[in-house]
Amino acid sequence: MNKAKIGIVGATGYVGVELVRALSGHEGVQLTTLVSQSYVGKKFSDVYPQFRSICDIVLSSLDVSLMKDTCDLVITALPHGVSSKVVPELLAAGLKVLDHSGDFRYREIHVYEEAYGLTHPHPELLSEAVYGIPELYREKIASARLVSDPGCYPTCSILGLAPLLSHQLISTDGIIIDAVSGISGAGRKADLPYSFCEADANYRPYAVEKHRHTSEIEQELSLLAKTDIALTFTPHLAPMKRGMLATIYVDPLDPLAFNIDEIHKLYTEFYANEFFVRVLGSKFLPETSLVTGTNFVDISVAYDARTKKVKIFSALDNLGKGAALQAVQAVNVMLGFDEKMGLSVLCSGV
Amino acid sequence: MNKAKIGIVGATGYVGVELVRALSGHEGVQLTTLVSQSYVGKKFSDVYPQFRSICDIVLSSLDVSLMKDTCDLVITALPHGVSSKVVPELLAAGLKVLDHSGDFRYREIHVYEEAYGLTHPHPELLSEAVYGIPELYREKIASARLVSDPGCYPTCSILGLAPLLSHQLISTDGIIIDAVSGISGAGRKADLPYSFCEADANYRPYAVEKHRHTSEIEQELSLLAKTDIALTFTPHLAPMKRGMLATIYVDPLDPLAFNIDEIHKLYTEFYANEFFVRVLGSKFLPETSLVTGTNFVDISVAYDARTKKVKIFSALDNLGKGAALQAVQAVNVMLGFDEKMGLSVLCSGV
Amino acid sequence: MNKAKIGIVGATGYVGVELVRALSGHEGVQLTTLVSQSYVGKKFSDVYPQFRSICDIVLSSLDVSLMKDTCDLVITALPHGVSSKVVPELLAAGLKVLDHSGDFRYREIHVYEEAYGLTHPHPELLSEAVYGIPELYREKIASARLVSDPGCYPTCSILGLAPLLSHQLISTDGIIIDAVSGISGAGRKADLPYSFCEADANYRPYAVEKHRHTSEIEQELSLLAKTDIALTFTPHLAPMKRGMLATIYVDPLDPLAFNIDEIHKLYTEFYANEFFVRVLGSKFLPETSLVTGTNFVDISVAYDARTKKVKIFSALDNLGKGAALQAVQAVNVMLGFDEKMGLSVLCSGV
Amino acid sequence: MNKAKIGIVGATGYVGVELVRALSGHEGVQLTTLVSQSYVGKKFSDVYPQFRSICDIVLSSLDVSLMKDTCDLVITALPHGVSSKVVPELLAAGLKVLDHSGDFRYREIHVYEEAYGLTHPHPELLSEAVYGIPELYREKIASARLVSDPGCYPTCSILGLAPLLSHQLISTDGIIIDAVSGISGAGRKADLPYSFCEADANYRPYAVEKHRHTSEIEQELSLLAKTDIALTFTPHLAPMKRGMLATIYVDPLDPLAFNIDEIHKLYTEFYANEFFVRVLGSKFLPETSLVTGTNFVDISVAYDARTKKVKIFSALDNLGKGAALQAVQAVNVMLGFDEKMGLSVLCSGV
Repeated sequence: MNKAKIGIVGATGYVGVELVRALSGHEGVQLTTLVSQSYVGKKFSDVYPQFRSICDIVLSSLDVSLMKDTCDLVITALPHGVSSKVVPELLAAGLKVLDHSGDFRYREIHVYEEAYGLTHPHPELLSEAVYGIPELYREKIASARLVSDPGCYPTCSILGLAPLLSHQLISTDGIIIDAVSGISGAGRKADLPYSFCEADANYRPYAVEKHRHTSEIEQELSLLAKTDIALTFTPHLAPMKRGMLATIYVDPLDPLAFNIDEIHKLYTEFYANEFFVRVLGSKFLPETSLVTGTNFVDISVAYDARTKKVKIFSALDNLGKGAALQAVQAVNVMLGFDEKMGLSVLCSGV
Repeated sequence: MNKAKIGIVGATGYVGVELVRALSGHEGVQLTTLVSQSYVGKKFSDVYPQFRSICDIVLSSLDVSLMKDTCDLVITALPHGVSSKVVPELLAAGLKVLDHSGDFRYREIHVYEEAYGLTHPHPELLSEAVYGIPELYREKIASARLVSDPGCYPTCSILGLAPLLSHQLISTDGIIIDAVSGISGAGRKADLPYSFCEADANYRPYAVEKHRHTSEIEQELSLLAKTDIALTFTPHLAPMKRGMLATIYVDPLDPLAFNIDEIHKLYTEFYANEFFVRVLGSKFLPETSLVTGTNFVDISVAYDARTKKVKIFSALDNLGKGAALQAVQAVNVMLGFDEKMGLSVLCSGV
Repeated sequence: MNKAKIGIVGATGYVGVELVRALSGHEGVQLTTLVSQSYVGKKFSDVYPQFRSICDIVLSSLDVSLMKDTCDLVITALPHGVSSKVVPELLAAGLKVLDHSGDFRYREIHVYEEAYGLTHPHPELLSEAVYGIPELYREKIASARLVSDPGCYPTCSILGLAPLLSHQLISTDGIIIDAVSGISGAGRKADLPYSFCEADANYRPYAVEKHRHTSEIEQELSLLAKTDIALTFTPHLAPMKRGMLATIYVDPLDPLAFNIDEIHKLYTEFYANEFFVRVLGSKFLPETSLVTGTNFVDISVAYDARTKKVKIFSALDNLGKGAALQAVQAVNVMLGFDEKMGLSVLCSGV
Repeated sequence: MNKAKIGIVGATGYVGVELVRALSGHEGVQLTTLVSQSYVGKKFSDVYPQFRSICDIVLSSLDVSLMKDTCDLVITALPHGVSSKVVPELLAAGLKVLDHSGDFRYREIHVYEEAYGLTHPHPELLSEAVYGIPELYREKIASARLVSDPGCYPTCSILGLAPLLSHQLISTDGIIIDAVSGISGAGRKADLPYSFCEADANYRPYAVEKHRHTSEIEQELSLLAKTDIALTFTPHLAPMKRGMLATIYVDPLDPLAFNIDEIHKLYTEFYANEFFVRVLGSKFLPETSLVTGTNFVDISVAYDARTKKVKIFSALDNLGKGAALQAVQAVNVMLGFDEKMGLSVLCSGV
């Protein structure tokens, strides 16, 4: 089999390194170009020494005309506001692109510009970009030129709510998403709040009045529910490198008819053909360590009959299904590969 | 000054050891008797070697007639169902008692018996026992013979909600308390789920359908609001030894009139004379590491004007203000001491 | 290709689970039988829920006559004293065996019996068993019926010292191995010292007067040096799940002739064809997190010219190259596979 | 009692904050001035919010003429090369000074200048400065104008070796100190290697060829042994905020006469009057978590009769007895206070 040639722009951030890790072990692709502004000329394994003998590619600066020749598809793991400039060039060079930033996740330009405080240089691409959750948009991803890798909190929340919302079983008002992320969610940063001595043994909320992912979650849930949704979202940081868990509170439309066994069946059927969504039975609850290093999202639902509140628990790895591994899954779809390719090995038994 | 003589029954659990720690440095008291079923005859500092030269008292078995002579006040840190048998004996011997268990926290016997699945051998004591949050029941504690040390989740939740509820500014329906605890909340246990390899780097919900503290929180909030409250509570475990944070979601009764600056002022005034409640300004949010090892509870409030949801953040140390140090605060009140005695030293700057 | 059929006896301990993880993603083998005394009848993924959809095999009790039909090779991850009884039965049934215990690691029965305090029921097998470090015994492993998977401290120490010892460049007297292990080294245990609250934020020595691995290290180093070696070994525990690092102190035989650049070259050449041994240049030192989840051992050497001491640093994953992944490497050799099969994917970029 | 007025220069580093913590609860002193270059005009509790209500002093810039009036004694927690300029000014203003840097720890200027690569502007002060380990230099500290707070590794190593060296029981050749520190030892830094995601779950050596503390340890050990000592020292970082443990290897001068019970007795007697040195019996080994937040150093000795190696284990808190709390102990001596004042409360039972 001819291997697909893949380039990564932004290879040395935390999403980039997880992409390199997964694609280094992927039989259908060949990593040809790794771009990193900060480390041009260094070997990838000099920046991340755990990669010695695994990926010793020399990092290069961005050269679209070169990538045109060396790549079939490019994954961009760049900050928002940068992707919106680089991605159009890559597309113009005839390359397929999967972008991991907020720049192409929105259907409506004004929502993006409000959430990110930026003017978008290429708003015309928004209607073309496909939102990259394969479980929801598989067919569109398969034929897309540009796929936008979703945010971690959105993936975790949307997959947790999709069955109930698309079946109109819950109120679209008053949805609360209380979520926690591991510290790698902040990116590779030398900031005091993320230093070991400040972050270890600490749990804290942040961005409690406004977080960009709120608008992204609302966009997708509104499409699923076929009505506009405004919701309450609160992110927190827990002292662990990786992992994300959302505890979601919703109100059943018909509390009397709400039966947790049927809901469990509904979730099981909704995701029956989805390898990467694991609906847990009543015996188990999601835990972040059970999905660390994987592309799985684990979901379970509980019902508090006394207060008529539904609780949905959804866990994933913020760098896995929440970022790099979902990107690999989408790339597999874009390239016509088996969706599980390069993603079926667990990374930690302990 | 004559020192008050204090005994601790259940001295080698995690609440017990924190009591010994705090009282060893307390100038107004003398620890006379430490009771521990598991380690009779051993020095306390042989069980907890960090206490060498600090507390080398030999652990003894429970002997109420002896404690009658050697103690003025006894703190019981025993499992529920055990306290209900031991505490009446101590009271009968003429001792004042502060009990840290669920056995004397309830106003109504049926709520206790439903929550704990036990028959209470001395229900007549429930009406006498004072719920031991000094900020709410200071005067009653001062004259009480029996004070019941509240649970950690209840203390964290009640103090976070008290100003808004007692001023009738929020709906008493639909309150959601999403909370997280450090692992010491599970007690000193050799169970696999609390082993380092299973608990580190993991975040998970537990007891999501029913947790005993729900009824305790509801009892106290109902008294504050002067109406029956049923609420939704979800506890989680984060990978840290100590610390607790509650993120509480409530609906303002009059969203149009709800002004976050006024709410902040209300909280500041409500707790103006309370040394151990720190109302944070808009610049800061509670973090568990900022209260670890202390008797402080840190509180702040945020308002999501878009969805009309109020978010209250309340953080304490589950073994501090959530257990042992609140017990010391209440004991100070019971003994007529300055309430801050033995509690005004920070335990960690880093 | 016909896949080799593999059974694991002791599949639910920490070495077992890492074996299942690695072999689930190994293209040349098929896991046919997982034996676990404690969980017979349960799915492996009910014991380790992260394995849902990855390994849902039902755990069975040990039945050698059945394994004879369903397995080509069996890996035993059992306690010492148990392996010595089970392994002979498996061999008698015609199965190849890789054993991870101390029972078949010794050349001389009296050393084993002294170190483990046990009488060996089948001492005749010791001479047949091959010590399973492929870098040192590749050919013997390839034709062996019984391979003994080395201990973690021994693998880490032996590979760190092999080039210097086999070239007779250092004194065989006075070798000091100061080593640290992650907490999984203690196995899957519900013991207080390994609970999160006791083990987190703690570093401590243990077994400082006698540790079984000392005799195993001495045996192999003596063979390399062709003279009897007695050495000093001190293990410690650090607050992390996985990882091992040895800091080894030795004296050069000829300090004046000792040149660190030549030593570095010696190590590089010694391990030139060994994919899993990474000799680091002078810019880098081994760190445990760089080998976590891998079969790599990272080694570097430093020389303190002032005191004439050589320091060797050797790092591996105690469950990886120190146990389960070295076992997979050896099994690859036993089965005639590419030695890297199933072992070339990194498990963590962050 | 009139309280001694204390100023701290460099109050917002990790040593500074621990000084503020300890002195805020110290009955004999009053903190009058906190100097911090980075945060002038801010409240200390705005930089370290855990200090709200405990220390709300406004941080000021350095003004020696002002400190002359507001302080009796100044503690400087500044980088080396800065202290050497500031301390002489403070002394000239008539203030007593305790300095925590390498600038005044050396007896001989050339050793300092070689170790720190700096020219000392006031070498004449070296002969006046007293090395601030009270257990060794109590009388000199009591009458000193300038006391130099020792480094963490030196304190840990020197106290561990003092009894054996001063009794001439071990060889002064070949001493090896293998030590580990918590991450706060690197100071309050926003550097990638100390970020949570890079430092958690990682154990690694550093500065393996040269570390400044080597010369400081050698200086003091040479004085104790009354002969020049050159030793081998290797520091490591473990994933914990605080704590330090040294494993020290030495050779007995007379192995045949070396009796571990007598050595234990020797240590017990040597430190019989030292509250802050705890000699552990044969049942216990030092662990870092047992001294965290305290001024204790825990020491035990083991003997490997087989290889004739003595192992000394010495544990302290790198910010406690290794820095700020030893400084408080020395200040107590300088001011004529009870040496334990402000230092006898444990900071953590769990």
